[in-house]
Parts: sequence; C-alpha cells; structure tokens
Amino acid sequence: MSGHRREALPDSTGGDAPEPDPASARRMADLIERKRDGGALDAGELGWLCREYVRGRVPDYQVAAWLMAVCWRGMDAAETLALTRAMVATGATLDWSHLPATAVDKHSTGGVGDKTSLVLVPLVAAGGLPFVKMSGRGLGHTGGTLDKLESIPGFRVEGSPAGIRAQVERIGCALVGQSPELVPADRLLYALRDVTGTVDSLPLIAASIMSKKLAAGAPVIVLDVKYGAGAFMPTVEQARELARAMVRIGEGEGRRMRAVLSPMDEPLGRRVGNALEVREAIETLHGDGPADLWALTLELGVHQLLLAGAESDPDRARSRLQRLRESGEAARRFAALVEAQGGDPAVVDDPGMLPAAAVITTLEAPDDGERWVARLDARLVGEAVLALGAGRRTREDVIDLGVGVRLLRKTGEQVGPGEPLVEIHARTATEAHAASEVLRTAYRLEREPDARVDAGYEVVGA
Amino acid sequence: MSGHRREALPDSTGGDAPEPDPASARRMADLIERKRDGGALDAGELGWLCREYVRGRVPDYQVAAWLMAVCWRGMDAAETLALTRAMVATGATLDWSHLPATAVDKHSTGGVGDKTSLVLVPLVAAGGLPFVKMSGRGLGHTGGTLDKLESIPGFRVEGSPAGIRAQVERIGCALVGQSPELVPADRLLYALRDVTGTVDSLPLIAASIMSKKLAAGAPVIVLDVKYGAGAFMPTVEQARELARAMVRIGEGEGRRMRAVLSPMDEPLGRRVGNALEVREAIETLHGDGPADLWALTLELGVHQLLLAGAESDPDRARSRLQRLRESGEAARRFAALVEAQGGDPAVVDDPGMLPAAAVITTLEAPDDGERWVARLDARLVGEAVLALGAGRRTREDVIDLGVGVRLLRKTGEQVGPGEPLVEIHARTATEAHAASEVLRTAYRLEREPDARVDAGYEVVGA
Repeated sequence: MSGHRREALPDSTGGDAPEPDPASARRMADLIERKRDGGALDAGELGWLCREYVRGRVPDYQVAAWLMAVCWRGMDAAETLALTRAMVATGATLDWSHLPATAVDKHSTGGVGDKTSLVLVPLVAAGGLPFVKMSGRGLGHTGGTLDKLESIPGFRVEGSPAGIRAQVERIGCALVGQSPELVPADRLLYALRDVTGTVDSLPLIAASIMSKKLAAGAPVIVLDVKYGAGAFMPTVEQARELARAMVRIGEGEGRRMRAVLSPMDEPLGRRVGNALEVREAIETLHGDGPADLWALTLELGVHQLLLAGAESDPDRARSRLQRLRESGEAARRFAALVEAQGGDPAVVDDPGMLPAAAVITTLEAPDDGERWVARLDARLVGEAVLALGAGRRTREDVIDLGVGVRLLRKTGEQVGPGEPLVEIHARTATEAHAASEVLRTAYRLEREPDARVDAGYEVVGA
Repeated sequence: MSGHRREALPDSTGGDAPEPDPASARRMADLIERKRDGGALDAGELGWLCREYVRGRVPDYQVAAWLMAVCWRGMDAAETLALTRAMVATGATLDWSHLPATAVDKHSTGGVGDKTSLVLVPLVAAGGLPFVKMSGRGLGHTGGTLDKLESIPGFRVEGSPAGIRAQVERIGCALVGQSPELVPADRLLYALRDVTGTVDSLPLIAASIMSKKLAAGAPVIVLDVKYGAGAFMPTVEQARELARAMVRIGEGEGRRMRAVLSPMDEPLGRRVGNALEVREAIETLHGDGPADLWALTLELGVHQLLLAGAESDPDRARSRLQRLRESGEAARRFAALVEAQGGDPAVVDDPGMLPAAAVITTLEAPDDGERWVARLDARLVGEAVLALGAGRRTREDVIDLGVGVRLLRKTGEQVGPGEPLVEIHARTATEAHAASEVLRTAYRLEREPDARVDAGYEVVGA
C-alpha cells in the first residue's frame, strides 16, 4: 500500500505546484459543502476558486468533488454567468474594438461532417466583418476544424496573439487553435471533467463554451447548437436549454447573441474525413457543394450580419452572402487565409493537392429493387470514419488526413438496385471492409419513400 | 497560471506514487459515471477501486468525484456491504478464534465526555470476554480515547499486532490505536472525504466504521450510536438509520451485532477533558461515578455478554457486571491493562497522579433565587473544553491533558442562588474566563423544574 497521493492529470506539463495550505483547503471544503447542500457560490468565491485552481493552490481532488456537486445540484443563470466570468478572468482576453467593423464569432457544439466554419469564416470576412475563429481538435466520433485544416499542406493552426491580430487587420479573418493564453481555467477544468464523469452538466458545458467565446472578444457571437443522433445533445429540448443558457451568459456580458438549433441526425454534407471535408468546403465556396451545408452557412452568416449591424433585413443579408459566393470573393478570401497561415493557396483551385486514401471501395444497396434512405445515423457514420483512422479515440492517437467517406445517398434519397450508397476512402482493404460493415448499420433503407418534413432552423435569442 | 497539477493530501508521507495509466483512468471514469447516473458498483468493481486507490493507481481526483456521486445517489445495503468488504481487503485482518472465549468489540460514534470504553473494556474482560478496543484521537468538539489514555503517565497506545495478541492472551484486553496494517483504504478515504465535503454520507460513514470493526476480527460487535446536540447524528431517526446500516453490514459478514441508540444532548458523565475523564472512569470502576455513564456501560456490556453466549438472560448479565465492579475485579483489570501498556497502575488507586490544570475557577448560577437546569448543550460544552486546549481544531494541534470542566449541575438538577454550575480547569485565568462565557450559553436555566422523561435506550438488531 501507499499512504501517499501524488498524481498528475494525463496532460500535465511538469514542474512543481505549491502545496495547498490548510486555510485554503478548509475554504474550498466549505464551498464544496455549500454546493453539495444545494446552495450557490457567489462571484467572489468562484473567482477565488478558479484563480487558485489555475495557480495550483486548490487541488484537483477538491475541484473534482465540487464539479460532481455541480452536476448534482446544477447552477442557476447568475451562478453560471459568475463562473464563466471567473474562468475568463484566469487568462488574457482579446479586444477587436480598434477594427473599423464589428468582429463576429461562431461556435458549433460539434457534429459529424461539420465543416461549416471553413465556409462561413471567409464568406463573412469577405462581407467585411472581422472573424477570428478559434477551434479545437477532434475527439471521438466528431472531427475537429484544426485537424481538417492541417490536411492543407503547410497550413499552420498555431498563431501568437500579435500574429493573429496582424492577420485579421490585413485579411479580416483567421482560423486558429485555441490560444493557451485564453481561459487556462477551462483547459484544466475540462481535462479534469473528462476523467471524473462531470462532462454532462449543462451549466458546466455552457460556461466552458462561453468562457472561450467571451475571452476571444467578438461583440457578436452566433452559436450552432446541434441536436440528434450524432450531436452532443440528443434532443431539441436539451439543445434549446443549452442554447438559452449560453445566450443568457453572452447577453449578461453585453454581447449580441443568437443561437441556431440545427439537426444532426445525419451528417452535414456528403463528405466526412479531414481532407474530404476541406474539399467539400472548397466546392461549397465555389458555388457547388451540398445544399444542407450551404443552407446552414447562410443561416449563421445572416444572423452575424444582422447582429453586427451590417444589414438590417434578413433577405438582403442572405442575398449579399450569396453574391459573395457567386463573385468568387469568398473563395478568394479562403485562399488568402490559407496563404496567410502558411498553406499553399493553389489548393483552392486544385483540391487534388490534398492527401488522399490508398484504397477506395463502395458499399452498395441490395440488388432486389428500389430503396429509399429512411435514416442515416450520423453517430455510426462518425464511428466508421473514426475506425478508418480519421479521428482519435484518445488524445494521443495519430490521425490519417486522407481517409473518410463520401455519402452518395442521404436521408430521403432513392437508390437503385445494387447502386452504391457510400464511397469508402481507406488505408487498406481490410479497414475499408470493417468500415463498410458499420456503415451498413448506419443506413435504414425502406421500399417506400417517407413523407419528409424539413422543420427549418429554430433560433434562440432572436 | 500553471498547467500542472501535482498535489498531495495534507497527511501525505512522501515518496512517489505510480502514474495512473489511461486504461485504469477510463475504467474509473466509467464507474464514476455509473454512480453519477444512479447505478451501483458490484463487488469486483469496488474491490478494484479500493485496491488500486491504495496502490496509488487511481488518483484522488477520481475518487473524490466518485465519493460525491455516492453522497448524491446513496448506496443500497448490498453495495454498502461490498464497499466495506473491499475496504477491509486492502489490509490485514485480525483473528481471535484461537482464544477460549468469544472476543467482543465496541464502537461509539462519538460524543462529549464519552469515556465509556475506559470502563467497559476492563469490566467485560474481567467477565471473561477478550476485548481489544482500537480507538482514535479527538478532533473538533469530541475527545478521543487515545488522548484520554495518554494522560496516564507512561501509557502507550501503539502496539504491534503480535504485542497486542500476547497482551490479550495474558490479561484479556487492550486499548490501542487503530493499527495502520488494518484497512488502509479507510485512512486514505477518510482523509479525502474530510477535505471534499463527502463526510456526511450514511453508507460511507457505515462502511468506514464497520470496515475497521470487521478487520479487528471480533465475532461480537456492539455499537453505541449517539444522537442529539453533541452527536454526529442530530436526530434519533438518523441514528437509527445509521445503526441499521451498520448492523446489516456486520450481519452480512456473519458477525453478531447490536446497536444501542444513546442520547447525547448533554455530555456523558460530569467530567470533560482528558485526565478529568480518566479520573471519572476510575471512579466509576470503583463503584462511584455518574449514573448515566454506568448505565450506558452496563447496557453495552449486557449486550456483549448475551451475544457472546456468556449469559442468556439480560438480568443475570447485568448482575454479573455489577458484581465485577463491586468485587473490584473490573478496577484490577484496568490496573493490569495500564501496566501492560507501560503506564503506572498505581493511578487506579491514586488519580492525583494524573496531570492537573494550573487554574481552577467556577461559573455560578444567578443569585436571585432557585433555578433548574432545563438544558445543557453538549456541543457548546465540547467547544468550551476545546477552547481550553483539551482538543484539536486541526490534526496538528497539541493538546493539554489536564484542562477541562466538571459539570456540577446537569439537566433536571436544581441550583441555588449563586451556587456553582461548573468547575473550570484551565491553563490561565484568561482562558478560564473565555470558557466560562461559552459555558454560560451552554446552560439554559428555568425558574421551574421540567417534567423529565427518561426514554431509555433503543436497541437495533435485538
């Protein structure tokens, strides 16, 4: 046995933290007990907690107990806002008020095939609104924008605050990783939540997302909150609740907020996998690409233009974004962004430069008659693409940028006997076969078409 | 800021623990999530958790989150028993089956002025039942048996398993500290619970107490579960629930169990403070001493004799214990115990050898007429004695063995105008005065006597 407890979280970076002192241990224990008993912590207490935690003076084990008490008792709007502010205060914040136009930001809660940022950022920047999008890496069945971008040869996702600032002043946009200077409390808390069963708490999710958005400094924030089989929030009701919590936080800090609830039962677009998704984003910027991806991009972009005061009428905002695509300005802005971040801008006209998979196979529909796709499960598609090597099961996994799938048929579409449903891009035939077995279960095919209803987007904060 | 988290619990003893590996981190996260969602862990899982925690391979922060989830969701009887067994399995266990008579044990949930073990252990051992009582130190407003014993010059509370075994074979009893070989999981879990707001959980309390009793090996266990102002459990209902949980655990392990619910609204006996309590215990063994202390001692001892099969009739058991006191056998057994553990047995006939306080003052009743004590608050008496230096606010505090109080009037008793209520034994007049201010608030005096009803003891498991 060992009477000694000295541990580091898996993402520790070395060095020695100060020992917790008895008075601070007692204070933290009192705060834990208050939360455990259903009380709330005030702004001063949450400020102290986040600050001392980041300084290493409140230990992980006390914070873990507090996090579980928060999962148990929840947090009201005031406490959630106070926690978000306390998290923001542990790091640097960015300020774009010197720019001539209103800066905008966007966040998506994550889905399968979600490459919206790659289209939206250059599009809205081409419309004159500064747009710095800080993104993350993929984990589990959803991909990450940073991984996708790195399939462009030479593309750098790291940038210093000064470098990002200079780039935005020059070309109006940047697509970069989360800066380590911003919200260090979120990074530590997230790593701890991940291993202590405290991820699934609405106020903690809302505070985590919004702390990064607030620190990033844009006055206009549009959220894409996804619901459905492939989303973090399975039901629209949960998505709405999360959206409202985040809109309240942003508005509490004086930001102009809107949240779009968008479905994630089937993947967004037709391509899933890093380089495949960049290709689809480029096609969409060129005026092709899947309708659902462009529709969502437009929806988010229209809210950004309206909230930023660049347009006062939704239809005019929509037309403006469409013209920016048709004129080629959006695609040219993406090329400028790629070049500014070290990538070869020629990729925008020649997606064949992107990494490709060695093996391409297809999964076919049964050969005994017509079928209609009644359902295509985003989570299972995500799992298949993960198994192909496009994603990470653990943070340490190395990913393959070329692999993935192209969905030739999506929900509501007809498929003839023996016609291909999916194109599988794999490293080996064995991996392609394994993925096709998963993809087969992702499709539900029926003999008759379903009466489909497109519910449109629900908007929170309008 | 610090991206690094490396902490030690305040009671760490140095050395390096192994790093948690990702598979075990994931397994523990799954167990936390199950508990968070209201599920139960099985015997194999709890065995793994306790074993790996003691080995330092499951980190404090994961255990802290699990503990809070247990506070939230509770544990049913089967899970509580499985946890208790898992805790016991992390260390050594004792076995007394080679002794000619059935070994007995006792546990009290703690109260103010509770010196019952000092009387009960030699008394029942004199009755022929082997009795090894492992005790703890005082913390907060309640004292600890080990601290009290150390007021006897030379008395040693540490003993090796072999030494304790030899002593029990020779004189039938021992009063020692908890052996570090027994239930290391409890020591670690308790230190963690203390700083993570996870002390107040009935199944965790029951498992902690019973793990030590099971490991100590006696087939007969009698519990003294206190309720009231000075007790850990404020209400008789909570005490009953805890008693039932502990009796179920013991019976689940094949032990003969009984729990006595005893009131702790006012202190037990008239003396509170280490040496003062030893003096009162010695007086009680000699046939004097306060009635409530002797009544509780008899109640616990009778159940031990009955459960051990040494007597079959409660009245006969009671008479036997009374005879053991009257004959002087109980006091002689205490002298033998003191001598066996390094103390001077002459203390049993000369309590003047015990440490004494430098200053003795009194607190008097008002001088304008007769009063009756309507209430004497055990917790406030405990706080006053703590302030005199007899106890610890933190584990590091050094205590004064001589200080304390003698309660000249207790609940229901009459006090004349200006007559003393309490004798205060202090280091200085200043400390005596400060304690008298607290003690004044501990007494509620009325002009008329109350109709008092002695409810007697409630017994669980009979």
